[in-house]
Amino acid sequence: MNMRKILDEFKNISEVKKMSIEELDLLSQEIREFLIENVSKTGGHLSSNLGVVELTISLYNVFDFNKDKLIWDVGHQSYVHKMLTGRKNQFGTLRQYGGLSGFPKRSESPYDHFETGHSSTSISAAIGMARARDLKNENFEVVSVIGDGALTGGMALEALNDIGYRKTKMIIILNDNQMSIDKNVGGISRYLGKIRVEPSYNKLKSDVEAVLNKIPNIGKGMAKTLERVKNGIKQMVVPGMLFENMGIKYFGPIDGHNIKELSRTLKKAREIDEPVIIHVITKKGKGYSFAECNPGKFHGVGPFDCRNGEMNSGKTMSYSKAFGNAMVKLGGEDNSLVAITAAMGESIGLQEFGEKYKNRIFDVGIAEQHAVTLAAGMASQGLKPVFAVYSTFLQRAYDQILHDVCIQKLPVILAIDRAGLVGADGETHQGVFDLSYLCQMPNMTVMAPKKIEEIEPMLRWAMKEKSPVAIRYPRGGDNNIELEPLKEFKKGKWEVIVDGEDIVVIAVGRMIYEAMIAREKLLKSGIKIGIINGNFVKPIDEELLKDLCYKGKKIITIEDNILNGGFGSSVLNYVNKLNKGNKIINLGFNDTFIPHGAVDLLFKINGLDANGIIQSVMKMM
Amino acid sequence: MNMRKILDEFKNISEVKKMSIEELDLLSQEIREFLIENVSKTGGHLSSNLGVVELTISLYNVFDFNKDKLIWDVGHQSYVHKMLTGRKNQFGTLRQYGGLSGFPKRSESPYDHFETGHSSTSISAAIGMARARDLKNENFEVVSVIGDGALTGGMALEALNDIGYRKTKMIIILNDNQMSIDKNVGGISRYLGKIRVEPSYNKLKSDVEAVLNKIPNIGKGMAKTLERVKNGIKQMVVPGMLFENMGIKYFGPIDGHNIKELSRTLKKAREIDEPVIIHVITKKGKGYSFAECNPGKFHGVGPFDCRNGEMNSGKTMSYSKAFGNAMVKLGGEDNSLVAITAAMGESIGLQEFGEKYKNRIFDVGIAEQHAVTLAAGMASQGLKPVFAVYSTFLQRAYDQILHDVCIQKLPVILAIDRAGLVGADGETHQGVFDLSYLCQMPNMTVMAPKKIEEIEPMLRWAMKEKSPVAIRYPRGGDNNIELEPLKEFKKGKWEVIVDGEDIVVIAVGRMIYEAMIAREKLLKSGIKIGIINGNFVKPIDEELLKDLCYKGKKIITIEDNILNGGFGSSVLNYVNKLNKGNKIINLGFNDTFIPHGAVDLLFKINGLDANGIIQSVMKMM
Repeated sequence: MNMRKILDEFKNISEVKKMSIEELDLLSQEIREFLIENVSKTGGHLSSNLGVVELTISLYNVFDFNKDKLIWDVGHQSYVHKMLTGRKNQFGTLRQYGGLSGFPKRSESPYDHFETGHSSTSISAAIGMARARDLKNENFEVVSVIGDGALTGGMALEALNDIGYRKTKMIIILNDNQMSIDKNVGGISRYLGKIRVEPSYNKLKSDVEAVLNKIPNIGKGMAKTLERVKNGIKQMVVPGMLFENMGIKYFGPIDGHNIKELSRTLKKAREIDEPVIIHVITKKGKGYSFAECNPGKFHGVGPFDCRNGEMNSGKTMSYSKAFGNAMVKLGGEDNSLVAITAAMGESIGLQEFGEKYKNRIFDVGIAEQHAVTLAAGMASQGLKPVFAVYSTFLQRAYDQILHDVCIQKLPVILAIDRAGLVGADGETHQGVFDLSYLCQMPNMTVMAPKKIEEIEPMLRWAMKEKSPVAIRYPRGGDNNIELEPLKEFKKGKWEVIVDGEDIVVIAVGRMIYEAMIAREKLLKSGIKIGIINGNFVKPIDEELLKDLCYKGKKIITIEDNILNGGFGSSVLNYVNKLNKGNKIINLGFNDTFIPHGAVDLLFKINGLDANGIIQSVMKMM
Repeated sequence: MNMRKILDEFKNISEVKKMSIEELDLLSQEIREFLIENVSKTGGHLSSNLGVVELTISLYNVFDFNKDKLIWDVGHQSYVHKMLTGRKNQFGTLRQYGGLSGFPKRSESPYDHFETGHSSTSISAAIGMARARDLKNENFEVVSVIGDGALTGGMALEALNDIGYRKTKMIIILNDNQMSIDKNVGGISRYLGKIRVEPSYNKLKSDVEAVLNKIPNIGKGMAKTLERVKNGIKQMVVPGMLFENMGIKYFGPIDGHNIKELSRTLKKAREIDEPVIIHVITKKGKGYSFAECNPGKFHGVGPFDCRNGEMNSGKTMSYSKAFGNAMVKLGGEDNSLVAITAAMGESIGLQEFGEKYKNRIFDVGIAEQHAVTLAAGMASQGLKPVFAVYSTFLQRAYDQILHDVCIQKLPVILAIDRAGLVGADGETHQGVFDLSYLCQMPNMTVMAPKKIEEIEPMLRWAMKEKSPVAIRYPRGGDNNIELEPLKEFKKGKWEVIVDGEDIVVIAVGRMIYEAMIAREKLLKSGIKIGIINGNFVKPIDEELLKDLCYKGKKIITIEDNILNGGFGSSVLNYVNKLNKGNKIINLGFNDTFIPHGAVDLLFKINGLDANGIIQSVMKMM
């Protein structure tokens, strides 16, 4: 391990206020080394944290976060903040069960004031804090740090609209790195780009004044007009007029790796008694050449070799990749197939589709609400839109799925990646609510493949449906399940994988694997359980269920979703209606949020594994 | 009935294209009379429709909606459009069961291309249609009409950001009437206001050019600077620079009641091969003095006297009013209580609170997502925020409630008005999903009062809770229920209203009334059912349920919510876990959307009334 002159001795945040610029620069360098070294071992978010080293240090240099509040939008860029606030030595446990969270957590530190995870929430939260301060006559600053990607999320714009009107004093740092997880898109992004390439505005301002001074002898009638001209010119001289028009003072653009310039601007902003936006230009992955060249690849990473940036590229097939392959194939067969992504084209598997069918992929930025209704509009005109999205992010579009898709019964396909547990990202990223919020929507069909090879035929089936279909599949790949993939599907018809005696387990998606293991183990005790693939989570297979119930079977359901309103709940409702007295046990997540940790461990802790099934079987016998 | 020269003879939309401006003006006048006369009898949305008479006519004058597509944001302003497209004679059935919908409905007319109801969706849907057109090489125009209120909804801004970047050809009409249901707020709204008060821009433009011409002999170095100055001046001359900065061409502001000017601008916009926004100034309630003076009052109305604008003001106490009164009272006792509304302060009962505690009410515009996270931010700093919102609109903030409120267990109070059926507004406004989407959220408490007098003590109880609480109550008032209101609550403890023999009905909110009637009727046959007030929808009263189950009771649950994931589903899950073999029937809405119609009728059709309970009792016996 390297000796780090400043970082190793660093005790508390007040020291940052006393250091010279040279010392702060050295601290930056040491933090960067620390981050690269540690994240290469544990995995985690790298690029975004490397991008905000100087920004974070400058914030701590200017503000007193023993009273001032700092809110990190999305939150995965809070590592430097965590290091400065006494958590450096916990980085060995980053994102592990019981270890340091990869996001701000109020239980972890008094410096974490608001938990984030999903994009675009920080301005709203910050306004809330600032207004609480004003009503309670307290005295502290509130700073939110939001990326240019997150700024395209609707709720961030709702917040700007509010604060520009009501003028609550607070500071918004617009951390402009031109990236979400993918490269940013959108009108606002292009607007910011224009600002970035403009030359020095101070120089320009004096030029303009020189021009104006050359206007001679204007008549009285023209005086007012000249005033207008000057105001108009302000629109050019002040590059952030988009924000100024909304009522928010704009500073920038500022070099986000220059602590001196940053600190000076932050101090200026602090003195202003109304909302201020500071436009800071940073480089994602800054200081680590492999990440600078490919910030997307180093956005969220597993362990890697920090000397050469090489990762275990995961040669096993993932669901995302299989989805991407299927899209490419189906896109070739049917040119009404279009893909929509909310700023995650690559991570969700759509890269090749996008390259091959350039005019049929739509990256809308971090804008899940718009994405869903856009899909609905397309479907209404005969296209076959697939919105590919992580389970947790789709939560943003609950209302749009319910209204714009389901009420009109429009054939939109939702390809829901990272359903169930995702592991290391924790509470805000586990996809354990989707079955509940989708099953409560009339006209919605919800499917789950039991193995990767079923992704393509499921998509093919969904493309023929005349109503909305959601296909949800887990992060990563299969558990080497030795079962024939289905090639054909019939709406609401489950697959009987293996018959049994008294007890039958109906399992969803990856839970089938656990049921198979449970069966193997139970066979040794002479117990033969049946296994059914609950591939249609909605509608359920009422015919088969009826048959099971009339035969007096005992039923266990298992799903990687919360119990409330999920698959098992639907099965129970139907079994109860049949009123044949069948015993039924529903396995799923209880009414609680699932923290970060390894997926297998979390399943085990929550009883969602072969042992959980075996215990339920024993209970029933 | 008045004779109407043009309207009475009007056959189809092509006629609008042939009429002279004078005839179109007369048509406008006749349509206005028709609307006032008819809506005064049936009730419905008045102000917004009176505001768009000339705009709608101008659209039909310029476009060919046999191929072009017109999408109405929110949709309640589509009456004129409905009249012109063959539905005039159905206005007698407006918003009645089986009659004309108050919103666009694809099943109603081929001219209704996309169903709306919630705000801010139209641009997304329109972009989807326009992109489908381009991919399929078809040839039609797409026009969306969106109010300035709806423009503050996040997803509308997400859509602008997308289209300004990808430049899909379409036309957005910004119908600027300075109103949502309440008066508009927000930075964008104020920006539009500034544009409105500016004098003629053409005049200004020539003035500016005159000034520029007075600049003599500029040196070569200054030429480029002058170019910049001119561009800067464009920012002033073009009033819609906020939109231009996002990449969308801006026209306006245009007088929205001048058919000639509107038609000319629409024609110009149609020729442009990229997205255009046309800023149209209209007056909500235009042409009906009572509505002009009080557009909020005439936004959505019941029948009224069209001669004097007098309404049956509804002297009976409503839940909204009781909520408002309670807020005023509690706000006096505790100055940490603050109220948040998303553009509905008056209709939700907060007017007096807002007048009395000016600095403690926050109208954020149509921005439910921001509203919830703002509340979370406030709660994190010790305020007691109450977000008062209609059940259906809260759907927009699913993700924010789940993450920003529930994960952090922040004591935000959701006052959910219009829960259950609302009646005449139909599918998009029924509040029948809230129990399902809230009960699936860990850390959330969900309550429902059985009568109006319980609103205040419930709020008082919620203010003491250290975690999120939702209180949901219906539109309108009570059914004269003769029961003592509760004054105290204990978390997760239900109220036994009356004991019975074998069967007990656990009812939520207004369903208790139906249970009481059922009991009365059944008593005549010698059957004594018990009634329990399921006032805690979450957490349920496990202790009481256990007791009931061990006593071998049969249970009927009834709620004005969909069955999937609702109250009954929670009760069933627990009863099933107890495994005592108790019979249970869950009453609620099946897996379907509930159309418009009278509330009582809809309850009856869906079996959610005393008869439905009696039938279930009979089935159990």
